[in-house]
Amino acid sequence: MQTVTLPALTMREHIGEVLRRIRQNQGRTLREVSAGAQVSLGYLSEIERGQKEASSELLEAICSALEVPLSQVLHEVADRLELIEAMMIPDAVPEGLLAAQLGENMTLQS
Amino acid sequence: MQTVTLPALTMREHIGEVLRRIRQNQGRTLREVSAGAQVSLGYLSEIERGQKEASSELLEAICSALEVPLSQVLHEVADRLELIEAMMIPDAVPEGLLAAQLGENMTLQS
Repeated sequence: MQTVTLPALTMREHIGEVLRRIRQNQGRTLREVSAGAQVSLGYLSEIERGQKEASSELLEAICSALEVPLSQVLHEVADRLELIEAMMIPDAVPEGLLAAQLGENMTLQS
Repeated sequence: MQTVTLPALTMREHIGEVLRRIRQNQGRTLREVSAGAQVSLGYLSEIERGQKEASSELLEAICSALEVPLSQVLHEVADRLELIEAMMIPDAVPEGLLAAQLGENMTLQS
């Protein structure tokens, strides 16, 4: 199993990962979604990589282009943060469960 | 019953309202929380009023000062957005329920 070391990601990085996963699950390109959200391809890419903080309005436009409610994205981000917060309490969450919940093979950086 | 007309608030405005409600429920002043979060009082006030977009790092610092997990704040914001999204589908949510959930007397601007 390949393991990705996961430092405590910022909210911005979680938002980016969630948006990218949704887009990729839809089989859509950065180009398609950036056109729909009226944002440049480069900027959308930076948001997905957690390098840029998206404004509320831009986040709404991206969610609209992805046809997902912003509330769903935020709940997913909150779920991910909740797992990370729980990891700060030793033994609160087994690593396997964390990986399963995040849908990726990862461990927390200790 | 006094009714506050509620246009579709942005995520930024919901975040501000949730943070302010938490602070006020704790009986704490803007001064106390701004000192704890190492942000200026004026900037925290603008965030609470939804006039400034808080970066992920600042949001984490404010939540830390308020001693609430960021995940909890985001879930609350997502819950509020979800209700507003449901209101976009006519008759999906009775106005009374919306007001009860948001904890204020308000109706959506139609």
